[in-house]
Amino acid sequence: MLDYFFNPKSVAIIGASNNVNKGGYHIIKNITAGFKGRIYPVNKSYTEILQLPCYPDIASIPGDIDLAIYFIPSRELPHTVNECAKKGVKGIIIESGGFNEAGEEGQKIQKRALENAAKAGIRLWGPNCMGFIDGNRKHVFSFIHSAVWPDVLRGGSVGLIVQSGMLSAGFLLHALQEGVMGVSKVCSIGNKCDINENDLLEYMIHDRETDVIACYLESLVDGRKFISLARKTRKPIIVLMGGRSVHGAKAAQSHTASLSGNYPIAHAAFRQAGIIEVFDPAELTDMARAFSKKMPFHPQAEKGTAILTFSGGAGTITVDLMDDCGLKLAKLSDETLAHIAPLFPVWNKPDHPLDLWIAIEQHGFEKVFQRSLNAVFEDPAVDSIIFHSYATPLITQDFFNELNDLVKKHAKPVVVWIEGRKDFAEYLRGIAENAGLPAFREMNRCVSVLKGMKQHFTKKPAR
Amino acid sequence: MLDYFFNPKSVAIIGASNNVNKGGYHIIKNITAGFKGRIYPVNKSYTEILQLPCYPDIASIPGDIDLAIYFIPSRELPHTVNECAKKGVKGIIIESGGFNEAGEEGQKIQKRALENAAKAGIRLWGPNCMGFIDGNRKHVFSFIHSAVWPDVLRGGSVGLIVQSGMLSAGFLLHALQEGVMGVSKVCSIGNKCDINENDLLEYMIHDRETDVIACYLESLVDGRKFISLARKTRKPIIVLMGGRSVHGAKAAQSHTASLSGNYPIAHAAFRQAGIIEVFDPAELTDMARAFSKKMPFHPQAEKGTAILTFSGGAGTITVDLMDDCGLKLAKLSDETLAHIAPLFPVWNKPDHPLDLWIAIEQHGFEKVFQRSLNAVFEDPAVDSIIFHSYATPLITQDFFNELNDLVKKHAKPVVVWIEGRKDFAEYLRGIAENAGLPAFREMNRCVSVLKGMKQHFTKKPAR
Repeated sequence: MLDYFFNPKSVAIIGASNNVNKGGYHIIKNITAGFKGRIYPVNKSYTEILQLPCYPDIASIPGDIDLAIYFIPSRELPHTVNECAKKGVKGIIIESGGFNEAGEEGQKIQKRALENAAKAGIRLWGPNCMGFIDGNRKHVFSFIHSAVWPDVLRGGSVGLIVQSGMLSAGFLLHALQEGVMGVSKVCSIGNKCDINENDLLEYMIHDRETDVIACYLESLVDGRKFISLARKTRKPIIVLMGGRSVHGAKAAQSHTASLSGNYPIAHAAFRQAGIIEVFDPAELTDMARAFSKKMPFHPQAEKGTAILTFSGGAGTITVDLMDDCGLKLAKLSDETLAHIAPLFPVWNKPDHPLDLWIAIEQHGFEKVFQRSLNAVFEDPAVDSIIFHSYATPLITQDFFNELNDLVKKHAKPVVVWIEGRKDFAEYLRGIAENAGLPAFREMNRCVSVLKGMKQHFTKKPAR
Repeated sequence: MLDYFFNPKSVAIIGASNNVNKGGYHIIKNITAGFKGRIYPVNKSYTEILQLPCYPDIASIPGDIDLAIYFIPSRELPHTVNECAKKGVKGIIIESGGFNEAGEEGQKIQKRALENAAKAGIRLWGPNCMGFIDGNRKHVFSFIHSAVWPDVLRGGSVGLIVQSGMLSAGFLLHALQEGVMGVSKVCSIGNKCDINENDLLEYMIHDRETDVIACYLESLVDGRKFISLARKTRKPIIVLMGGRSVHGAKAAQSHTASLSGNYPIAHAAFRQAGIIEVFDPAELTDMARAFSKKMPFHPQAEKGTAILTFSGGAGTITVDLMDDCGLKLAKLSDETLAHIAPLFPVWNKPDHPLDLWIAIEQHGFEKVFQRSLNAVFEDPAVDSIIFHSYATPLITQDFFNELNDLVKKHAKPVVVWIEGRKDFAEYLRGIAENAGLPAFREMNRCVSVLKGMKQHFTKKPAR
């Protein structure tokens, strides 16, 4: 189902171009860079594009066509749909604008195109969208600039559904570069005149390459179905809803011609369905990246989070931020504190959050963190750990690798906060992420990600 | 008042060391790097440190001493205070720990030292702190590692008061490197047995080099006085309070031996006094950096913020985030929209937030942003602007400089959100900050900073 979008055997590009300043050039350039199937550029003005024969229209294409990508003015769409129907095209991704978002004329065109497609059994994706990217297969069915993605696109397990053209490109770049996160599918759905978030959510729930699903949505076509799909899956679903406010809803309407509907109801339903709601694009990618690490987690109401820090102040602020969002500080056992106590001077008994600075000064970084990390991992009252690290050359890739081994062994996730000189802190953030640990330079991002994970892993299976 | 701390003629370092692994080495190394007055290392074990004659005790120092820095074990402090008294020392910065935060014995020592100091009229700073840094004079009276700061310390107008040792070093690094922010004074106040946030707040309010005051505090020694000082100044005061939650307060207590008291009362009083409250160290430095740009701002209840974006989705999310914190979207005048309309295709009338992508595609970046920025600056309903920029080589230092000229001309602040490839987006963020515009790669940071500025500039003068 929908496989003709995700794995077509052949693709026609209606509006392919030889002009590097046009989106129609980048679409075909992108597709030829990764797609292994047959590629048919369609444009009356050319006989060849990128060494491929170019056809004046769909009808002239010699072979079968699974998928067409539409990138010419909107008024041609209803007719093109009929032409595609004659060739047995199964799906069309419409990346042009000028439809429902563009006044009465555009609305008429979108309606007629939809009617024609319905008659022929053709599914329409878009319009007014940036198309689709498969990170693992390097399928880039989008007019995104062809110079932008080759060195950043990384395959992986995060599926993105984004109801905004530019933003989906932005999300992609942001996601790829803020750390180490690979994407399975990035779907920009625009006006979603036919293919909508529910179709794609269902596809991704069953997609073996997708483990985490992150959505930016400005409306819910069928909220009940969305919630019902979400309830039934164990895959984390993260949603950033645009148009939560009155003015935001108005902006969303003019943007993708959608009505956000009643946000408070959606908000409550998300919560009940175990959907993780976020409020900022950075939070969406933080959360998706964190889930993509697949850290095991068995949160329990009577357990809590342990904090290891090098700064009493940072520990205090983290506890406050945790309290703001209902995350519980673990009550460390006497055994745990007794195990760590020998690292401290007699006049300074360890307390929770564990401010380890004095111990580090006396016994060195490695011994102190090893002993105290082991102790909190072993503590039955601890279900998760926030680890504060200052930027020191003593922290290596091996350190984080071993920390991730402990995460797996004890099924307790660790989120890392790194403070220090920007360049070096960024380097350490990179190696922590490489080792499979979510790492941030802002405390609130650590807490927010842990909160989302805790919410997901306490999700009840659907009845 | 307190000038013997900030501008002493001579400094004695009790516990100076030749051993590069000791804090006592870094203190003297730091002081000799920037301080132009007389420097007296004190340590029985050496006759010379860093080519300066070293004295076995305070009494042996030949000249007058304004300021002493104390970095030997706590038990020696009461006696040392008496020795200092004999030499006419006016202030002592105590950077060692082992006092009130370290149990009964430490408490006794702190009390005795205080009594001795009070008798002699000596003011005590700390203990359990990282001392003091003057960014403009390069006075570093701290054991912060001497290799860390020379290439990052930048003079400027932000004063920091931080009740946490490690965190003040962290804040400093963070502040210096996250963008372009210079500091006037960074004060780490530790247990604040004598010198407290009120002393320093008062000093900074009158300090001509300090325009913005940012505090991390785990307690208020005299909340009424703090509030009263804040009410009377026009300088923005930003506070991150540690120990807001029950567990946070407990952590703060063991950390700097302080009681946070009743946070809800402080929270309400901050608001009334026009103090800007933040909840994360990154937010504290974001806000301080933004205020240090000195953008003029005359917010009015009936006016609002204009949003210029290249992405409808980004515009929608920004409006939602603004709504979350009570920031109003400006109602653009018909004239403004009419002025911009010729840039758009007929089927796509501009609406607010201004999604300029289609116009940019038709007319190019420069023309579209110039015309629409001018229009919103001129619009009387607009008091501030959030400008979304994608990372494009078309944006130059000149572009942001000219944008800042408009900010000054119209007295309307601009906050910039930059989306795009990390390396390039970071570069653009840097040049925007250089031009005097706060710039972020996360939307919520833009909104949060604008909210803080709006709060400050609507502050009523104290009666």
